Amino acid sequence: MQQVSAGKAFGGVQHVYSHASDACRCDMTFAIYLPPQAGREKVPVLWYLSGLTCTHQNVMDKGEYRRAAAEYGVAIVCPDTSPRGAAVPDEKDNWQFGQGAGFYLDATQAPFSQHYNMQRYVLSELTELIGAAFPVDLDRQGVFGHSMGGHGALTFALKNPRRFRSVSAFAPIVRPSIADWSRPAFEKYLGPDEAAWRAYDAVSLIEDGHRVDEILVDQGSADPFLTGGLRPWLLLEACLGANIALSLNVREGYDHSYNFISTFMADHIAWHAGRLGR
Amino acid sequence: MQQVSAGKAFGGVQHVYSHASDACRCDMTFAIYLPPQAGREKVPVLWYLSGLTCTHQNVMDKGEYRRAAAEYGVAIVCPDTSPRGAAVPDEKDNWQFGQGAGFYLDATQAPFSQHYNMQRYVLSELTELIGAAFPVDLDRQGVFGHSMGGHGALTFALKNPRRFRSVSAFAPIVRPSIADWSRPAFEKYLGPDEAAWRAYDAVSLIEDGHRVDEILVDQGSADPFLTGGLRPWLLLEACLGANIALSLNVREGYDHSYNFISTFMADHIAWHAGRLGR
Repeated sequence: MQQVSAGKAFGGVQHVYSHASDACRCDMTFAIYLPPQAGREKVPVLWYLSGLTCTHQNVMDKGEYRRAAAEYGVAIVCPDTSPRGAAVPDEKDNWQFGQGAGFYLDATQAPFSQHYNMQRYVLSELTELIGAAFPVDLDRQGVFGHSMGGHGALTFALKNPRRFRSVSAFAPIVRPSIADWSRPAFEKYLGPDEAAWRAYDAVSLIEDGHRVDEILVDQGSADPFLTGGLRPWLLLEACLGANIALSLNVREGYDHSYNFISTFMADHIAWHAGRLGR
Repeated sequence: MQQVSAGKAFGGVQHVYSHASDACRCDMTFAIYLPPQAGREKVPVLWYLSGLTCTHQNVMDKGEYRRAAAEYGVAIVCPDTSPRGAAVPDEKDNWQFGQGAGFYLDATQAPFSQHYNMQRYVLSELTELIGAAFPVDLDRQGVFGHSMGGHGALTFALKNPRRFRSVSAFAPIVRPSIADWSRPAFEKYLGPDEAAWRAYDAVSLIEDGHRVDEILVDQGSADPFLTGGLRPWLLLEACLGANIALSLNVREGYDHSYNFISTFMADHIAWHAGRLGR
């Protein structure tokens, strides 16, 4: 693991590291913010999963998470959104597939299955790396994310409800199996049998019996993807039918950008902190 | 004036506009954040002047000013740091001169004097534009900035103490006449007669009798430019001799980056708000 950068911020330190990944068979970069409390105790870990086209850096630059993370004493880990590099299959002109669009799944179809294993990368490899290298308490983990990363957060939590004590999302893709921007990607990563897609679709997971106690979702009413790719009411319907306490806040006038994310970032971190013993 | 972008953030709107500038003889871009209070009253204006290599966008992305600006009801204006474009003389490989390095002065030497008039641009042209286009109260203005922009803020306020009711800076260049990174630029913009430089040097301005009541400066102790280009103790000495109340906070372990700026941004906005009737 190599340090790319480190800078003091809000009393803690914003780190960036790179490392050779077994799961993705390439070098991967991630950001981790350690709050000041990490100097004297193991702190809870909150995973932030980013959306299409992003790297670890976008939310690090524009997400404004450090103030609240320092206030509540929570580490924030920001993985990349896909494997990277010249050896990794890609569609350069397609922002909804390939590099920057890993969809937090483990691909089963060649040639993508060689590298596109973001679920395994985040849940196993990067978790072990972080647990060994930093003063974090892996018994207190939460997960959140934006758009494609909101999809990642919801599916990770539904499949691992004991590991993730809290889950929230900004403008998540709740039903990627039927959304225009994810159906083609799922077919290429997972093959044409849609039964295999259900493990990566939050609404399908709930239909199939997976449960968390509660979910927080914020969604901008001026989000251009609201009625096409996002449709959070599909998640609301599923949660109502499954006794999952979904808090869905539709925020008037907000779009899909970091202006929206940063505005509600502190609310989400406070939500997680309260469920992670902070 | 053309709108480049607009997005709701923290209840207000982050705008970016471009316009043809007379002072700079090129198109200029600026950012303005209007807090929610601007929907019902004229709000105070706080000018943020950025440092070397920056555009209007760096602090907009990474400065984390919107939360506090919305809380206190202050508009934040972020100009670019120099004229821009193919027609504007530049030294491509020199980050301390030319585009991105306007030093908030009005150049007197050809060919730079045709375009490099950032003092006039900010203090006259952009001020008039903003006063006409937005619900801002030009009787309540403050100014702050970072590094080269801290130099800009200090010199603007010292020369216009009635206009700027409050001034602060992050890691400012306090004595550009003698700092390595600004001496060559001053010679090219202003000519070899160093008497002409004094109007653009905060310490010289104080020596020459210019005054403000008080100044807030934050400076990171791990800033790599601290002992070379910055040396805030030169400002402290000048202020002590001139009865200017300088609050100088040397922050242990912080560097010169936006990690540092964003950490103390809310403190600075609160400082200005208290002096701008908020």
